[in-house]
Parts: sequence; C-alpha cells; structure tokens
Amino acid sequence: MNLETADSALIDDLILHIGEEAVTTDPKMLLSHSHDFGKIVDHQLPLAVVFAERVEDVQATLRLAAAAGVKVVPRGAGTGVSGGAHATARCIVLSLERMDRILEVRPEDEVAVVQPGVINAVLNRSVAKYGLMYAPDPASYQQSTIGGNVATNAGGLRCAKYGVTTDSVLGLDVVLADGTLISTGRNTFKGVAGYDLTSLLVGSEGTLGIVVSVTVRLRYLSEKTCSIAAVFTDVAQAAAGVVAIARVRVQPAILELIDLGTMRVLDAAYGSDLGARGGAMLLIRTDGHGAEIEAGIVRSALEGLGAQVSAPGDEEAVRLIEMRRASRGDGQDDKYRVGEDVAVPRSAMVDYMGTLDRIAERNRVMVRVVAHAGDGNLHPTFWVDPDDGDEGVARLDMALEESIRAALAVGGTITGEHGVGTAKRDWLAWEQSEEVLELQRKIKAVFDPQGILNPGKAIL
Amino acid sequence: MNLETADSALIDDLILHIGEEAVTTDPKMLLSHSHDFGKIVDHQLPLAVVFAERVEDVQATLRLAAAAGVKVVPRGAGTGVSGGAHATARCIVLSLERMDRILEVRPEDEVAVVQPGVINAVLNRSVAKYGLMYAPDPASYQQSTIGGNVATNAGGLRCAKYGVTTDSVLGLDVVLADGTLISTGRNTFKGVAGYDLTSLLVGSEGTLGIVVSVTVRLRYLSEKTCSIAAVFTDVAQAAAGVVAIARVRVQPAILELIDLGTMRVLDAAYGSDLGARGGAMLLIRTDGHGAEIEAGIVRSALEGLGAQVSAPGDEEAVRLIEMRRASRGDGQDDKYRVGEDVAVPRSAMVDYMGTLDRIAERNRVMVRVVAHAGDGNLHPTFWVDPDDGDEGVARLDMALEESIRAALAVGGTITGEHGVGTAKRDWLAWEQSEEVLELQRKIKAVFDPQGILNPGKAIL
Repeated sequence: MNLETADSALIDDLILHIGEEAVTTDPKMLLSHSHDFGKIVDHQLPLAVVFAERVEDVQATLRLAAAAGVKVVPRGAGTGVSGGAHATARCIVLSLERMDRILEVRPEDEVAVVQPGVINAVLNRSVAKYGLMYAPDPASYQQSTIGGNVATNAGGLRCAKYGVTTDSVLGLDVVLADGTLISTGRNTFKGVAGYDLTSLLVGSEGTLGIVVSVTVRLRYLSEKTCSIAAVFTDVAQAAAGVVAIARVRVQPAILELIDLGTMRVLDAAYGSDLGARGGAMLLIRTDGHGAEIEAGIVRSALEGLGAQVSAPGDEEAVRLIEMRRASRGDGQDDKYRVGEDVAVPRSAMVDYMGTLDRIAERNRVMVRVVAHAGDGNLHPTFWVDPDDGDEGVARLDMALEESIRAALAVGGTITGEHGVGTAKRDWLAWEQSEEVLELQRKIKAVFDPQGILNPGKAIL
Repeated sequence: MNLETADSALIDDLILHIGEEAVTTDPKMLLSHSHDFGKIVDHQLPLAVVFAERVEDVQATLRLAAAAGVKVVPRGAGTGVSGGAHATARCIVLSLERMDRILEVRPEDEVAVVQPGVINAVLNRSVAKYGLMYAPDPASYQQSTIGGNVATNAGGLRCAKYGVTTDSVLGLDVVLADGTLISTGRNTFKGVAGYDLTSLLVGSEGTLGIVVSVTVRLRYLSEKTCSIAAVFTDVAQAAAGVVAIARVRVQPAILELIDLGTMRVLDAAYGSDLGARGGAMLLIRTDGHGAEIEAGIVRSALEGLGAQVSAPGDEEAVRLIEMRRASRGDGQDDKYRVGEDVAVPRSAMVDYMGTLDRIAERNRVMVRVVAHAGDGNLHPTFWVDPDDGDEGVARLDMALEESIRAALAVGGTITGEHGVGTAKRDWLAWEQSEEVLELQRKIKAVFDPQGILNPGKAIL
C-alpha cells in the first residue's frame, strides 16, 4: 500500500469510527484549518480535519492516526499567533471547536468544568450571573477557546493581578497519544498529590496530550471598576508612572502602556486624537471593593508626575481599555510585519523600549509597542514597506533577532504569553541550555513515544 | 570491597571534596537529621549528613553518591509533616540549611533570588522594608526554608488570596541527579518558553533534583490590615459565615475556621475563654487599600448571621490570628496522634466536617479541626488515649483511612498542602489512576534514571 492509499484508508477509518459529518477533506476547510495567525514559513495542508464532538472521537483519532503513523495537530479557534496550530506535512488537524459545552458551573466552589472548545468570553458570560469571572483574558477572548488558552498558557491584560492561564487551571482530562484518557490535578483550590502534571500540560501546545476537559478556578467579578487613561509626554514618563503606581502599592487589574505609534493606530481606527495629546499613555483599571480608593491613589501619583489624567467616571478611559482589551492586532503575521511578545524584568522595561527604538532605527524598520506594563510583557510590532521587497524582509528579520537577543540580555524571555509554536522555536536555544532542551525532549518521549502529537512545536 | 568499606570510602570522598566541617557522622547529628515531623514508621539513620554551602557541594555530593550507588535525601529545616525528609536505608542526608543567603532583592522588579536554606520569615523580614512580602506562609514560616517550601509546594494561610508556593516561584536553579546544574523558568512575571519544568519541580519533594536557588515573585505588603474574630454557635453556622463572605465577594487574605476542640486547645495554651463563648470561630484578615471597606462588609454579613463579631481595632482578633498563623500544631505525629491535610471543594466543607465527627464517633477516636476555609483545606487532628495501646492505634488508623476516603468521595484530595512524603504514599493510588502514577514514574526516570534522589517519596 503506497502512502496515498494508506492516507485514504485512514480517512475512511476516521469516517467509519467518528462519522461522516465529523471528517472533512473539503479543500476550503483544509486551507482554513491549516494555520493560525502566526507567520507561515512552510505552509502545509492537512490530509483531513476531524471535528471531535466527544472524548471518544479524540481517542479514536489518536489511535487511528498512531496506527497509520500520521501526525495529529490539535486546534482550537486558531487565533494563536505563534504557529502552534500550523499544519505539518501529512497530518490530521484535530479541531476541538465542537466540544464547546460548559459541563459544570459550581458557583459555591468558584469552579467550572468546561470542554476545550468553549470560547473564553462565553465562559465569562455564563459565570457573570454568579458574580464570577474566568480571569485570564487574552486579547482574543471573544474568539479563542479555553483549550487553546490552556495549550498556550495564554496571558492577557488581567494577569499581573490575577495570574495567567496556568494559575486558573486546577485539573485536566487529557487523551494521551495512545488514546488513553487520564485525569490530572484536582477539583479543589489546593492540592499537592504527586507531580504537577497539570502545569506541565498547560502551555505544552498539544505536544504531550489532547485536553478534553478543563477544571478552572473562577474569581470574583468586581461590581465596581475604575478606569483611568493617563497621557504622558513620552514613554520614559509613562514608565515612571508604572513605577509610581507600584510605589503606592496598588496592583491594578489592568495596566497597559501604549506608545505614540500605537496611539496613532488607535486614532486611525477610532477617530480619536490621542496622538495629538502626548507621546505615550497608560490605561489603568482598578477593581474590587477598594477600586475607588485605589483609583484615587493612582490618579494623585500620576498627576504628581505631570500626566494628563482622566477624571473619575470619564467614559473615554473605559472605552479605550475595552478597545485595547479586544484588539486582535493587525491579523496574520506576514513577511513584512511581525508582532512580538518578549517579557523583561519590569525595571528593564523603559530601557528596553529605548533599545527597540535604536534597533529599529539602525535597521531602518518601523516599530510600535504596547506593553502589559504590570508584568513587563511587551508586544512590539515591527514592519517594513512591502515595496522594499526581500531587502526589507532581511532588515526586518535582523531587527527582530536583535530585539529578542536584547530582551534575553536584560534577563527576559523570548515569549511572555504567546507560546513558542513554530515561530519562536529557533530562539529557544538562545534562552535555554542544551540540558534543559534535552529534558523536555525526554518528557515529550514519555508522553508521546511515537512523536505523533503536534510535531515541531513548543520545544526544540 | 564490602558495603561498609564502600560507605566509609564514600564518606572519605565527601570530606575530601566538600570539607571536613561539611560532613558529619556524629550519631546525635545523624539522629536529629534522620526525620522530619511526619509520622515515623521505618526509622533509618543516614550514613552521614552533608551540609552544603555552595552549589559545587551539592554537585559533588550527588556525583559521589551516584558513583557509590547511595541514595540522597535532601533536607531543609526538617519541619515537614509528611515524612518527605525521612532518611531511608543507607542514605546521605543532604542539608541545604547553610545555603541561607538572599542572593538578590530587586524591589522595582518585585523579585528576589534566594538560596534554598533561607528561612521564610527571614526573607519576609528583609523585603518588608521595600513594602513587599513573600506571600506563601506555611504555619512553619518562622522555621521552614524556602527550599523546603518549594519541595512540598507549601501552602499557608494567605493562599486563597495570594496562591501557594508554586504561584510565587518564577524560576529555579537545580542540580540534577548526575550533578548537572540547570536553570528553569525565568526572571520575569510571565514566560511560556518550553514546558513548565519549574512547576514540575515545585512539590516534587527532592525526587527530581536538588534546588539550589529560587527566584520568587514578591507581592505588596499591605500597610493596613483588618482582623476580625467571629464566634458562632457551631461549625455549620461558621461555614455559613464562609459562604456569606464569598457572597459579598470579599477575598480575605486570611480566612480560618476553628472548631470547638481547637478553641479549647487555644484556651489551654493562652488562657483565653474562647470555648465558653461559642462552638466555632472564623478568624479573618482583610488587606490592601480596601481592607477597611472589606472588613466592614464582612462584619455586616457575619452579624446578619447572628455571629459575635469583634469590633474594629479589637486587639484580640489580631492576637488570635497571629497565634493561629504561627501554630506548628502538636509537634511530631506519632502512633497515637496524627494531623491530616485533605482539601475538599469549598461547598463540601461543612458536610465533610460532619462526616469527620461521625467517623470519629464510630471509631471512638477524638478529632478537632482547623480549616483554611478560603480554599477548603482542612487540618483534622485525630488522636486516641495512649493507654488504649494497639487497639486504640487500630481505631485511629481506621478513622484516618475513612476520613481520606470520605474526602475523595466528595471530590477532594489526600493532601492540600503538606505533600505526600512517605505518610500519604499508599493513598496516592486511591486518588490517581495507574496511568497517572506510571507517567510520574517515567518522569522520575527521566530526571533520575539511577533512582538515587529521595527514594520512596512523593510518588508511588
């Protein structure tokens, strides 16, 4: 049996076991499910897309694929930006989108159990009536799934106060590469029985197992929030504002730093005039029963620095934060534009932003930056004019590489919250020693000895 | 060369490589370093105790022990209560107590880097001047080390609001079983490069590697805290108080539930009259800029339930919380008394406490309970009269076993924060499937193929 015949046989088997409506080879579907929003270097179409509806569908897919020696690339909503859901050669894309049921909400326990395909915003809407929220809020929260958030250990705006995905995940049901279903973690807030397999799986980008159920801890949804927009003359002043907020010991729920380039993008999109008012902004939200007190403290601290601070109840501040929260960037990364995701120690942030400017200038590329300033996670966007062609792309690549090395040089990381995927894989060796890389390969081999789960992602 | 000669040769080698003052075979030292506060079933003396002062000492110990086929049991302050630091047959106890330097405090980054032997309270004192705290606060915080806290993924009183040890650990330096030094994790609040080896190592009880440096995230130390003591008629009423606090969406920094038996113990120790005032208590502390607002909301909610609630500024409430925070229980677990550590979903807590009473009655044993009520982590203490001898011990074991099974039956875990150690190892299979146990064995084999690191602990 040649490969093509084998692949046809696999697809027939998948249809037989999982059902015709769950398996597609429609070229349009293959194309739309062949990548996420990460930069595409080596575009591949999958053999088929399987839409699992039940745990058994996931198990059957893995068993059949393993038997056929075909790789499996799991996929949520495909909103990732690192290529973690990019199809690889001769693979089955396993979509978890249809496993979209909220299995259980236990408001008294402040816990929910959801299937991986539940959209982040849908979970939040359905627990809001109990005064609860699922805290991790990647900018994609209106489209991205909890399963995808778990795969990438997604961050978001509320992380400095409420933690990233892993801090809200208590337990997982996971189908291993051989089709075995296991449960890790717990139902309870605390628990230390055995090794923390749950945290190992969170952020592993589907390379260790396929998550089919997630037990999450919920947090109190604040009835009262206070939003503040503060305009500064430049980034250094705004960064001084971040330090000032820390000095008064306020932990805002949201603390975003936005540079002039990004202010101009917002102006163009929403008809505002931010760019005319100053050279950098902080967007701040306090929450909880102390929200108003904290907002007052923050306002005084920032006014003391000479910032233009929005008044209490200013609706523009609320709108700007919601715009920022829901902004999915500029779409697909491509040859001429790439969004980055380094994190640096907070005190290094303003120097690092200066370094980015110098790198951009030296390489004649454009750059603008937004930062989750509460946790030192920066999202620079670099771009060149497509008219510059390959020469421009070479400059872009050089600037990008220098920006990553500069982040590492100040004790930072190559990825704060987007994940390694395919996009950052080559940089992993700049951050981690060969011994650490080798440990990860061996752990991968423990979970997936045949190497069929999302090959070429997450680790090197 | 027989075993005894080989062991002497190993000790000579240790002295040669690490220094005479770092290696002891003094019988008193062997005895005092042969166990922690967990119940001792199979008492063993180590061949020697090595007091590492440098990373190289840890590396040399592991290399020499591995070459001699001798096990290594790492040890912090020995305040653990699950036997994780119990010596095993023919082992070297590797004490990290002398690695007690705070290597770095970066107040602007809200990060500190410490050696494993730094005592929790010492770290807290030295960062308090910056208005910062290291949040995880096991009751042993005045004696226990950060390395020990990391080994057990220690909890404490402030966990419901600030998380457990793993939530405050950003990165680790770890010596692997073969003496290789690796760094895991990061310097930054966020970071998702590769698998989360840091979380895998936290709570692994020294079975995967020896932690020689810990990078921790610090939190804001609240200038203002409000302490509340509320006395209820019984545990069910106090549990209703816990629910009421959750309903008004206050996340206290501390929320302890104390039953009548424990109130009487406090009365005996401190000359108070708690036991005369009611049948159960809540001890509550709010912090942050909203501390007073939150305390006011909590007071109204509890008064609405008919509790006797301490007035604002009541010093007794402050004292009681500090007494509770610093209470190390009754010392060493023994044949006739054992402290437990289950966690259950919060809504199951009051029913579970009723179940504990019935189990105690049925088996004619005594029980009292304190609970970290914010996260459903209960610490029942069971005891029998030593005069009852073996028959009493049999009843104690039965009650203990029933209490664990009852916790699991309501979706709980065998250990909320103390760790598995040797004490809870047999129960692990009641909570985790064989597949999950086997994955952990394979991970152990990746890190420690020769099986020399703390054998017989943490996993089954």
